[in-house]
Amino acid sequence: MALLGLDLGGTKLALAVFAGNGIILRQETVPLGNRKGPEIGILINDQVDVMLKWAENEGNRIISAGISVPGISYVEKGTVWAPNLQGWNDFPLKKEVSRVLGDIPVTIDSDRACSILGESWKGNARGCKDAIFLAVGTGIGAGIMIDVKVLRGSNDIAGAIGWMALDRPFNDRYTECGCFEYHASGEGIGKVARDLLKRYKDYNGDLRKKPVNEITAHDVFEAYGEGDPLATSVLNQGIEFWGMSVANLVSLFNPEKIIFGGGVFGPAIPLLPAIKAEALKWAQPVSINQVKFEASALAGDAAVTGAGYLALKSLENV
Amino acid sequence: MALLGLDLGGTKLALAVFAGNGIILRQETVPLGNRKGPEIGILINDQVDVMLKWAENEGNRIISAGISVPGISYVEKGTVWAPNLQGWNDFPLKKEVSRVLGDIPVTIDSDRACSILGESWKGNARGCKDAIFLAVGTGIGAGIMIDVKVLRGSNDIAGAIGWMALDRPFNDRYTECGCFEYHASGEGIGKVARDLLKRYKDYNGDLRKKPVNEITAHDVFEAYGEGDPLATSVLNQGIEFWGMSVANLVSLFNPEKIIFGGGVFGPAIPLLPAIKAEALKWAQPVSINQVKFEASALAGDAAVTGAGYLALKSLENV
Repeated sequence: MALLGLDLGGTKLALAVFAGNGIILRQETVPLGNRKGPEIGILINDQVDVMLKWAENEGNRIISAGISVPGISYVEKGTVWAPNLQGWNDFPLKKEVSRVLGDIPVTIDSDRACSILGESWKGNARGCKDAIFLAVGTGIGAGIMIDVKVLRGSNDIAGAIGWMALDRPFNDRYTECGCFEYHASGEGIGKVARDLLKRYKDYNGDLRKKPVNEITAHDVFEAYGEGDPLATSVLNQGIEFWGMSVANLVSLFNPEKIIFGGGVFGPAIPLLPAIKAEALKWAQPVSINQVKFEASALAGDAAVTGAGYLALKSLENV
Repeated sequence: MALLGLDLGGTKLALAVFAGNGIILRQETVPLGNRKGPEIGILINDQVDVMLKWAENEGNRIISAGISVPGISYVEKGTVWAPNLQGWNDFPLKKEVSRVLGDIPVTIDSDRACSILGESWKGNARGCKDAIFLAVGTGIGAGIMIDVKVLRGSNDIAGAIGWMALDRPFNDRYTECGCFEYHASGEGIGKVARDLLKRYKDYNGDLRKKPVNEITAHDVFEAYGEGDPLATSVLNQGIEFWGMSVANLVSLFNPEKIIFGGGVFGPAIPLLPAIKAEALKWAQPVSINQVKFEASALAGDAAVTGAGYLALKSLENV
């Protein structure tokens, strides 16, 4: 028997076929291109069909599937809200994918939930009962595992940590995405750098090599590596926000581990000791001295691995 | 059969005997006086003994007990850390109280956990699966119920919301009690008012009727009721902190209800609409529009009622 995991992102779809022990038997990634609404559903079904047939041919029939989505999975309705996929305000993914899956059960959850499940199954949260995956990429979210179960909340929207209030007073610019995400997501890091570049005309360092409006978080991390003062200032502010946010997770949840992932962690992993030092100032003092901070073991594969785990777990519930 | 609930506070001990349906059959409160360490244990045992004998005489034998403590209950060790009780750094409460309870089972939990359990059994969280009790008194804590279970964390310290980081940069004055508690607990409200009184020599309102160093949160609420501008400014800042903190609870937990209790809510209950308006600016927009804000239905009895519920629930686990 085999399990199918899908990780639908904002720009690409990753698929993996797992053996029951979690070994990846085959893995594919396809770009979404300009697809929107039902076209994305059709792409998913085409790719799932390829995997089903391949596995069947290998004598390893897929008996369960899991899907990670970049937004909210409304479990009861089987629909998905994904703000970065056009036409996915309430997309009936469960029904759509059942056209090709037939009787094979499918479980759908958010990318943040899948990421902590992936780390719990095959990564750095193995053996933990209480662990949190902090995903900092274009946006920011948290997958929160309590007593080996993912926190969903009363309407499947728990873990929306990008909205965390960390810097008073309120600023209208937080309305679109939340205070924490505004300042410290990948987008946020780029934006803070561009704001500083416009303000400090005298600065003449690495970040002047490109037009201001093309500067991204990637450029900031590169310049930081060279000791650039403006990049250092931007990332010192990032360290402050990341430290405060994880301090709040530690004080509220008293977890065993916080795992850092997403596109920013990545290059921000060497900053973990500085983030821990910042968190140490703010957090409940007993909890912060018990928690471990670690990088994701699975990096880009955390969500697809968690999707595979969803597939495995749904079999236990039958 | 009857159940015994105890609520040990920083200055007094409350006891209640409950019928199985939650009706209070007898209720007592005794001051701790200057007792410390084991003397508090002796007071508890004396009072428990009185209740056991009374219930026996009434033909209503106590078959289970629960205790709410003002700190952390280390479940596995049966010990309690209570910062406001001298000599209770690791007090063996379970063992001590068993001297008088004998074979009657006893369950011990924190006042914040007991408060949400009390509201869930007999108050405003009845019928909720996911609800949070925000207790703002001398200190600040949160009792967090997820899927009808209290969040404990990996070492029984979850819900330490007084440590929530809300106002950068870090200030050394947060080291003792946490940023949120520093600004917005009962103690904090008094302190902010005293600081302003020292700074604004020109102010000549209601809060000048007492020496500055005697001004407490109680005085601030009284002056606020009279429209005093300095008290208004202090409580507007309180509204901002309370709004940000509950916004963060809403974004992370996506609860059905937040219940406000403790000595400050109380007089701050009329501020709930303003707190909701502040939270609305910061929180995940779908979650904040689903959550309800309510006052505690049980006020000072929330924790002792939750202790009674601990006693009831432990019977189900036998």
